[in-house]
Parts: sequence; structure tokens; C-alpha cells
Amino acid sequence: MIDLRSDTVTRPTPAMREAMARAEVGDDVLGEDPTVRALEEEVAKVVGKEAALFVTSGTMGNQLAIALHTRPGDEVIVGEGAHVVFFESGAGPALSGVQFAIAGAGGLFDVAAMEERVQGGAYWSPRTSLVCVENTHNRAGGRVFPQADAIAIAEAAKARGLGVHLDGARIWNASAKTGLSPRELCAPFDTVSVCFSKGLGAPVGSALCTTRENVERARRLRKMWGGGMRQAGILAAGALYALTHHRDRLGEDHAKATIFAEHVARVAGARVDLAGVETNIVNVDLDAAMTADAVASAARKLGLAINPSGPRRLRAVTHLDVSSAEMVQAADILRLAIEEVRRA
Amino acid sequence: MIDLRSDTVTRPTPAMREAMARAEVGDDVLGEDPTVRALEEEVAKVVGKEAALFVTSGTMGNQLAIALHTRPGDEVIVGEGAHVVFFESGAGPALSGVQFAIAGAGGLFDVAAMEERVQGGAYWSPRTSLVCVENTHNRAGGRVFPQADAIAIAEAAKARGLGVHLDGARIWNASAKTGLSPRELCAPFDTVSVCFSKGLGAPVGSALCTTRENVERARRLRKMWGGGMRQAGILAAGALYALTHHRDRLGEDHAKATIFAEHVARVAGARVDLAGVETNIVNVDLDAAMTADAVASAARKLGLAINPSGPRRLRAVTHLDVSSAEMVQAADILRLAIEEVRRA
Amino acid sequence: MIDLRSDTVTRPTPAMREAMARAEVGDDVLGEDPTVRALEEEVAKVVGKEAALFVTSGTMGNQLAIALHTRPGDEVIVGEGAHVVFFESGAGPALSGVQFAIAGAGGLFDVAAMEERVQGGAYWSPRTSLVCVENTHNRAGGRVFPQADAIAIAEAAKARGLGVHLDGARIWNASAKTGLSPRELCAPFDTVSVCFSKGLGAPVGSALCTTRENVERARRLRKMWGGGMRQAGILAAGALYALTHHRDRLGEDHAKATIFAEHVARVAGARVDLAGVETNIVNVDLDAAMTADAVASAARKLGLAINPSGPRRLRAVTHLDVSSAEMVQAADILRLAIEEVRRA
Amino acid sequence: MIDLRSDTVTRPTPAMREAMARAEVGDDVLGEDPTVRALEEEVAKVVGKEAALFVTSGTMGNQLAIALHTRPGDEVIVGEGAHVVFFESGAGPALSGVQFAIAGAGGLFDVAAMEERVQGGAYWSPRTSLVCVENTHNRAGGRVFPQADAIAIAEAAKARGLGVHLDGARIWNASAKTGLSPRELCAPFDTVSVCFSKGLGAPVGSALCTTRENVERARRLRKMWGGGMRQAGILAAGALYALTHHRDRLGEDHAKATIFAEHVARVAGARVDLAGVETNIVNVDLDAAMTADAVASAARKLGLAINPSGPRRLRAVTHLDVSSAEMVQAADILRLAIEEVRRA
Repeated sequence: MIDLRSDTVTRPTPAMREAMARAEVGDDVLGEDPTVRALEEEVAKVVGKEAALFVTSGTMGNQLAIALHTRPGDEVIVGEGAHVVFFESGAGPALSGVQFAIAGAGGLFDVAAMEERVQGGAYWSPRTSLVCVENTHNRAGGRVFPQADAIAIAEAAKARGLGVHLDGARIWNASAKTGLSPRELCAPFDTVSVCFSKGLGAPVGSALCTTRENVERARRLRKMWGGGMRQAGILAAGALYALTHHRDRLGEDHAKATIFAEHVARVAGARVDLAGVETNIVNVDLDAAMTADAVASAARKLGLAINPSGPRRLRAVTHLDVSSAEMVQAADILRLAIEEVRRA
Repeated sequence: MIDLRSDTVTRPTPAMREAMARAEVGDDVLGEDPTVRALEEEVAKVVGKEAALFVTSGTMGNQLAIALHTRPGDEVIVGEGAHVVFFESGAGPALSGVQFAIAGAGGLFDVAAMEERVQGGAYWSPRTSLVCVENTHNRAGGRVFPQADAIAIAEAAKARGLGVHLDGARIWNASAKTGLSPRELCAPFDTVSVCFSKGLGAPVGSALCTTRENVERARRLRKMWGGGMRQAGILAAGALYALTHHRDRLGEDHAKATIFAEHVARVAGARVDLAGVETNIVNVDLDAAMTADAVASAARKLGLAINPSGPRRLRAVTHLDVSSAEMVQAADILRLAIEEVRRA
Repeated sequence: MIDLRSDTVTRPTPAMREAMARAEVGDDVLGEDPTVRALEEEVAKVVGKEAALFVTSGTMGNQLAIALHTRPGDEVIVGEGAHVVFFESGAGPALSGVQFAIAGAGGLFDVAAMEERVQGGAYWSPRTSLVCVENTHNRAGGRVFPQADAIAIAEAAKARGLGVHLDGARIWNASAKTGLSPRELCAPFDTVSVCFSKGLGAPVGSALCTTRENVERARRLRKMWGGGMRQAGILAAGALYALTHHRDRLGEDHAKATIFAEHVARVAGARVDLAGVETNIVNVDLDAAMTADAVASAARKLGLAINPSGPRRLRAVTHLDVSSAEMVQAADILRLAIEEVRRA
Repeated sequence: MIDLRSDTVTRPTPAMREAMARAEVGDDVLGEDPTVRALEEEVAKVVGKEAALFVTSGTMGNQLAIALHTRPGDEVIVGEGAHVVFFESGAGPALSGVQFAIAGAGGLFDVAAMEERVQGGAYWSPRTSLVCVENTHNRAGGRVFPQADAIAIAEAAKARGLGVHLDGARIWNASAKTGLSPRELCAPFDTVSVCFSKGLGAPVGSALCTTRENVERARRLRKMWGGGMRQAGILAAGALYALTHHRDRLGEDHAKATIFAEHVARVAGARVDLAGVETNIVNVDLDAAMTADAVASAARKLGLAINPSGPRRLRAVTHLDVSSAEMVQAADILRLAIEEVRRA
């Protein structure tokens, strides 16, 4: 089975397992796990923030940031299809009591689109308090958020007293694509959430990177939400290995995505916006005659796991555990699946 | 000053004041206020529901309904510009932990637009649990929600296990316009919130109308949110008077809105969609050269109070306390204000 | 029926009704109701705070204060049997996400009891952020909170960075009893909630009194919780009348409570702590052989409404709508009811 | 350093590390981690429930249970000093909107104490919906909750429609002490939270055990709170090893606690309730002349880590990583520390 459902499905490599097996650990609830500390220091340095907090998931990283920046009844400006809106089980309103306002269309947005969504301040309106940017943008097909827009949005937001958060689950991919360092990409933002699973291939873990004071406030919330772990150094060792050794290879995942995209673009009944394939995600749009569910199901039987991300859209994600050769195979299987569904 | 900012600015009439002054009262927290009971029974009958709960505001009526239908993390489908999203201080997420998904554009929406917004059910997605319809729709300019759409939406929602709520703050206007009874208009919905202030002209009060069981659950929440009142019969008397005597006259408010709209439509620099003026609200769009703030401010100095509802949009609302003659005057003042701003 | 269930059952007097009928009103959501403004200014002056916000209930006043002082996960120190814990439908945790810690026993507490309850500050403990005092204390039988304790508690709390709130629903009774002005009694506290219903006899309404900045934050929350009212001046007129004309007469209610208590103290099977009857509330403890439910039920049939406040405790409350003569009658009826239940 | 601060400080054994290094893993958010599944099935079997959910902490296990059983504004009955009240950062009110009512004194309580705390049902009172039992009880010094009381409480609770939850973080110790199986101890309860860290010595992890339906509801909440993990099988392997191999040895920890307690009981200035030392926790009470902080600090310098759990109380916890011989040493160090503080 070629598994292109997500870059979250990777399994730890032997070297990563070895690092985890040897990890020095302590009770991190008491602040005594040396490997967790080492990871937090390293990731803070890499993204250029004062401090970091190791957390179990990107959802926790994002939601801690939302909780830090807002009060119940506030409104958070996001791009269309944002992960915080669609893939976090409604945590924004449930944990922080906030609602979302969508800026622009398609996921990316500019400063004008942001400013249109800022509420005027009457006490009967929700209070806008935060802008969230997602880079790369998952539902937009792994698109890189243009850095000039990020800078302009952050400046305008700060001028209005709003916080700015980066959902940087795949910031490593944006860095590999643009050549800008994670530090540069994260510089405009008050808080940044990054993932060690997904592209980097660690089994578990994300980090919230921000000021030292914010980290201490987030530590209390992490405990409150059940995210305090004892000898978390086992997981942190895998994350630290991934951060150190797997960033440089992300270009390979992007190359694989391009191969897949180019082959699929030639398949009758499928459309791919080749210019939009910037990193490791490929959106495939199907002709009106087919449903994504039917094609995904047919592909699965032929050896390709791929997920629908809309009624007539499939999303393919490349990662550590698939090869370039498999990309051609995967496109072939998808072609066969599409033919089968069209015939039916 | 001709006040077209809202139909909430009306003052109680002498007869209404008389009814309030004579009201028989008791402790409504203990269920012993006869006037509150009479009002609740009457409004339940008028809208065709089992029972009703008297509340201090339309916001409380809507938010009680949201709380009854949802759990934290749920998603509520609404039309664009919905009152529950824009004018209730973020109460949906703050009190019930829900987020909103916008169906269609402009406020009104059909069953297809609704179905596009229903989440698929994965546990990492918010759970869709409620659809809210607003009739008439305030930000859409007092437009009546087509009854056929309301019926289709409610049927589709129920088939998927979703609740359906009607924000009927101005359902009386929809009834006056369409000739359909409030009972007919409310029939598709599980819960209905109606207002006695606004068009009906009572000083304070709304009602949540639904099943007896829902009313008992809402009574607890009303207390929890601080909305329990003791001798509330004073207010209920005004509301009951308004419900009995002021529904029949709403056609006059609509006629006044039409007069105003027709006169404003002839003003250079202003646009009004005359076909869209269905009830007592008129949206006036200004040429790009002017801001709504500037025009509203100039008009105020000339004797007309009117509110911006967008960067280049004004909203005028007719009601009990303005006359037909004043409509022509108001349009004249607006013309002068626009001329003044264009000259500047 | 002599009704001693609560001082919330009073009906407005003719003069109060007259004041309400004549009240000048406006849209208070827009800040334009002159009578609401007059009431807010007057009550702020009387209790010695910068500003006040008119609200529908004591529950809303208390809960707004809790929301102003706390963040989710915080702990609030209260006396045993506090109104905010027992009679507000769980609003503290539901609206503000706080839990309560009980200081001392019986309702009143001193600074040492308070300090025992302050959490140490570890991030896995709830964060103590507020101390609430209730004066007079309802469940303690209308006892006055000793002013020296209030001052010491407030000083110690402020030294630790904690807020201090006074649930002063019956602060007027405390003032009448002690001769200290409301201003003196409220001076130690950051926020004070007072009621115009209860002892003062207005039909509806309370006020949160605090700084101007807090009032503006509370105004947003009041709207969010559904407590924004339009022409609220009708109710404010009743409250203003009560504040102006009914404070001086509270001594009569206390005298009535003493008459009732002294007569009941002589009834076989009933015990009253006469020294504890300081204001308008009398707790009556029954012999083990009887339940409060049974006695209350028997009394009701004989013409006395009185509420159980524990398995073997009744609570009687005097007010505007009962006379001194009725107190003797009420005690007689209670004697008969007790005799009847003991015989059964 | 002999570390008796908590049984959470243990480090994984070589065999446990080996099991973790070899663990077969998959994406558990997609339900594809075989080791997580194996652990969940095994622990469900051991405690006799239909299903289990692997979570990062005991706090998450307890709070998921509270969320399953309650609605905002509800009240939860607990024993004094309950972990859910004191050590979970206020999560009960913050995540579920509930407040706590304390039954009895000292942590353990019986059915009569529970019933005293059930609210009467008026809509202005919080709604009692859950009773939580903690076994063994941490703050009570590792005391076993008497099984007859647990059964009676659960029966009475169910008769009143209340849920019953067991905080069984140390249920393994209760089982080792009483000889009753975990299944027997858990039988009275609807939901049970158990820990693999603490006595069992796994680095990270707990489980919520209950019905299959509850587990599915909890899975959504776990994701919402940020607790969804990808290749969690690494941690689950450690937990499964601990569950399989470390339960039988808990008697050794209890024996070590007894040795320590007996030696400390002879130290002048210290008191230990020897009869109350039932499992692996020892509470040491100090004479009024000393503070626990001072003694803990002096002990630390001499090579013993031990935590204050009150102004004049220390808490010692035995575990996998301390030996019987060290217990005598630890008691000696404590004696020296006490002598030093008394001299000062």
C-alpha cells in the first residue's frame, strides 16, 4: 500500500528509535526532564523565539496560542479552510470561547482582507483579538504563505493591538521551499506552533514557541487540558532527532509531490494546478461525474491510500515513507481508479 | 430629530404605560407572576409552540436556543451577517462553546447552501448540530426569508439530526409582509426567539418559544446567566399590550420604509435596491467617494439620526415613533448630507 | 396568607408604580435612558464607587464581578453557604470557569480562615484570584459580616494580589443594623453587587458598583449574557424610588423579625438563636422528630408561607408587605403547625 | 539523592525501554496504532470495562470522565483533598463548567456524607450529576477507599440518576493492599481513570475505562483538548509492559513505606499514623515549632527529596526506584533534618 493520506503516518526510523531508546529522562511536570529541555531550547533557537513548550499535538500548540491571546467572546481572523477551524474538533470555542472570521478566500489572504474582518469595537460586537496565519496552508494544497503578506498582516495587526499567531505545523516545508530560515518566517509572529511529526517524521509532538512569560502561562493551561507528561523525554528525543536530521531532506518530499502531480495532471478526468504544488501536498480535482469517495475507495483496492478533502477533491501528501518511484506507481493507480469509476 | 437608527428606540405609548402601571405581579423566579404567565401563554399560542419563556432580550432568546441545541465544540450553520454572529458580543462561543459556519451569501440561503456546510462527522471536525434562520434578516435589509426555503432547510436538517432555530426578532414584520401567520412561519422550527421591543414597541422583552421541556431547561440557564427577574409582570404587561395591539400596524412601518426608499433612490450618490425593501429596513449604499460615517455625521447635524452598517452603507429603520411625513423630510435631510459630504 | 418565604416577594407600592409609569426612558443599549443613568449615578454615590451598572438580578451582579476578577481555572474563596455557590445555578463555573473554596464555617469568616484557603501557586493548583464576602449573609440567617473582618480580609487579599467582591444584596440591612453607611461598608471592596428588590422592595433590579473601567468591561458581558435591555428606565424608576424612600424603613423589618423570633423561641419543638437575629431573617431549627418540609406544608394550610432551608430548618424573612401584627399571628400559626406535625 | 517526592519520578527500566524501542506503531489519530489498541484492550479487560482510551495523564482521564457525566453549571461530589480539585489546575470548571461539593472529611466518605451533598433540584441550585471516588486517596496518605462504601455510594448515586467515577490513578496499590482484583474494585463505577506512570513506573500515560460509547465521546474531547497523538504506540508499549510486569511488585513499595513510617514514627518532633499507612504513601506531621518547608529544605541538602503537603506536613511516596535499605537511610536523614531545624 502506498500511503499518501497524510505526512502524519510516517513511522520512526531506526536511528530515531535508537535516540528514543537511549533518551535521558526525568519528571517533566516537575521540570526535570533533560531531553525535553534540550528540545525546547533547540526549537526556540531554530524559530528565533525566547522559549518553547513541548506539547502532544499541533492542535494543542495552536489552541494554547489562541487561549493566550484571547478572552471568551473574542473573534479570531483566519484564512479559509484553516486547520484551527476544521480539524481541531471545535476547540477554539470550546476551550477559549472564541469564534472565527474568515479573511479572503482559498486560505491565503492579504492585509486588506484581514482589515475588512476587524470588528469596529461596539460592545455588542465580538472583540477581534487575534489573527492566525497557516504556513504552509494545508487545505490550500501546501501553499506557502507569502512572506510579504505575513509581514504586512502582522504589522497591521500589532498597530491595532491584535495578536498574531503562526500555525507553522509545516513551516519546515515553507522554509525548504523558499530558502528563508524558520527564524525569518516566524519573525513577524508573537506565537508559533510547529510540528515534529508530519514532515519531520517524529512519532509524536509539537511545540509552542513564544516569550518566556507566555510559555509559563501555557504550561498551566497544558496541565489543565491534561497535556502534562512525566518522562516525556522519550518522545522529545524522537522530536529532537527529527528536528536535527530531517529538515534538510524535505526538498525530496516536494520533488516527489511534483512527480505525482505531473503524472496525475495527464490523467483524463483529473485536474491538478501544477503551479500551486509548492511543497508536499497535491490537490486533485475530479470531473463532475465522479465523487472523491468513489475514486479513493477504488484506489485503495488497487494499493493507493489517498483521502477525499471535498466532494470532488482528493488530497495527496508525500513524506519520509514513500519513494520517488512509488509516485509514478501512485499516479498510475489513481488513473486506473478514475477509469474504473468513470466506467461504472 | 428623526430617529431611524433602529426600531429599538421606540418609547412606550400612554396606553402601554397604563397597562404596565396596572399590571398584577408576583415573584416570577417562584413562578408566581400572573402577567408573565399570561404573556408566555399568549405568545406560545400566537407562534404555535407548546410553551414560552419571557426573557430580557433577543440575544438571550437566541443564545438560550443555541445552548439547548448544542454542546461545546459544535458548529452552528447561519446566514451571512447573522445577528447571533455579529450583534451578540460573541455569546455563542462564550456561553455555549460553539463556532459558526456561514451558508450562502447575503443572509438568506437555501437547502443546498446549508448542506454544503454540514460537517462530515470525523471526530477531529466540529460537530454540526444546529441551523439558524433569521426572519426578517436584519443585515440583509429586512428581507423576508422565503418560507419554501425555511421548510426545505428544516426538513433536511431534521433528517440529519440537526436542530433548527428561528431568530424571529422581526417575525411580526415577515408575517405582515407575507400574510402568513406567525404560527405558519414558525412551524418548521424547534425553537423560536421573538421580540416585543423592536417593531412591536414594548420597552423591554423577548420570548423563547419551544417545547415545555425545552422551556424548563432554558429557565435554569436564564437564571444562570442572571436573567431571572422577580416582579417581571411590569415588563410583561407592556409586552402583552404590544403583542395584542401593535402587530396589525406593522404595514404602516413598511409603507414608511418604502416612501423613504423611493425618495432616497432619486438622490445622486445614493443607491437603494427598491425591490429589496420588503419590510421596515432600508439599506442605502453610497458612492465610493463618501464614507457612511461622514454622511451619518452630517445628517445628524441636520436632524436625522441614521447608522452606518458598513464602510459605505447606511441602514434606516422605520417604527412606531416616526410618521410618513417625516419620511420625506428624512430623505431630504439625507440628500443634503450627501451633497455636503460630496462637496467637502 | 402571611408570606415569609423571602423579601423578594414584595409588590411595588402605589407611589413606586406611579414613579415607574412616569419614567422618562430611552434605549439603554445605546446608553440613552436618562432614568437608568440617574439610578446608576445615584447608587454609585450611595455606595461610594466610581460607577455602577444596572442589571436584572443579584446573580448577574455577582457573576459579572466574578468574571471581571478571574480567569478559567481560578479559585474563589467564599464563606459557607454563599449565595454565589448555592443559589446561582452553578453560574460561577459555567460562565467564568471558576471553582469555589469554602473559608471557615457558617458563612462569616476571618482573615486567618481566608488565608488558609489561598493556593500556593504551583501551576497544577487552581489559581486563587478572588475573595467574596456576603453581607448580610443569607444562609447564616441575615447575620452582619463584622466590618473589622471585612477590612482585614480585604487588606490581606490585596496584599496577595487577590480581588475582593462584596455580595451586598442586603447591604442596606447591614447598614440599618450597624449604623455604618453603605459607603463605609463597601469601602474595602473592589466590586459590590447590591439589590433594589429584596429589602428595598423594587420589582426588579440590582447594580454592580465598581470602577468606571470595570463597568465598561461588565457592560460587554451583560450584553453577552443577554442582559442588555432597551427602555429599562421603567424598572430603573422603581429601583430609584426604592433606593431613595425605602432604606430608612428597614429597621421596621428587623423589629418584625425580632417579634417573630421571640414568639417562635417559646414554641416547644422549635429553637431560635435570638442573639443571631440581627436583621430581617430568622432561622428556625426543629426537633429531630419533625422535618422542615412537613412543618412548612402544615403551616401553609393554616395561612403562613415559610420555606425550609435544610432538612430540619425553616427560614423566615420579613419585608415591606408584612406587618408587626402579622408576626405574632405567623408565630402562632407556626406553633400550630409544629403541634400538628408532632402529633402525627 | 533518595527521591520520595512522588511515584511519578521513576525512570523506565531497561526491559521497558526495550519494549518501547521495538513497539509496532501507526497513526493513532486514524485508529491505526496496534500497540495502543493492544494496551487499550488489555487495560479494559483488567479493570473489567467494555473499552478504554489511552491518554497522556491522569488529569486527562479524570477530566474526560467529568466532561462525559456533566453539563455546565453542574456540581460534582468529591472527598476532601481530591486530586480533581487540587492538582488539576482548575480543569473541572475550566473545561466542563462544574463546581465541586466536598463530602465528609479527610478524603474518604460514606453514603450518608454523599447524600447530604446532593442538591434538591430547584433550578436556582447547581444540578448534582456526578460522584467521584479516589482510590487510593493521595492526600489522605494513600488510604484505600473501603469497598463497602464504594458500593453503597455507587448504588445510592445510580438510584438518584447520578454518574459515578473512580479516580483510580493508584487502583493498582489498592488492589495489592486488599487482594481485591482491579475488576472488583472498579465494578461499582461507570468510568474509571487509571495511571501507568506512578506505581507501575511507565514514563507516560493513563487510560479512561468505560463503555464503548463513552470512549467514542471521549475520543472527540481528547482531540479537542490537544491530546490526540500520532505514533503513540511508543508510549503505549511502556505502559503495556508496566501493566503486565509491575503490578505484582507493588507490595514491595508498601513494605518500603512501612519501614520508612516505622522509623520516622520514632523521631522526636515527627508523628506518623502507622495504622493509616496502607500503601506507598506516608504522611509525616511535624511539631508546631517547625515548618514543612524548612525540614524539606534541610533534608534535601542531606540527600533526601521529600515534599511538603501542608504547612506542617510532609508526604513521602515509595516506588520502583528506591530500595528497602534506602528507607532506613531516608528516615535517618529526616531525623537529622528535623533536629537541625529544631536547633535553629
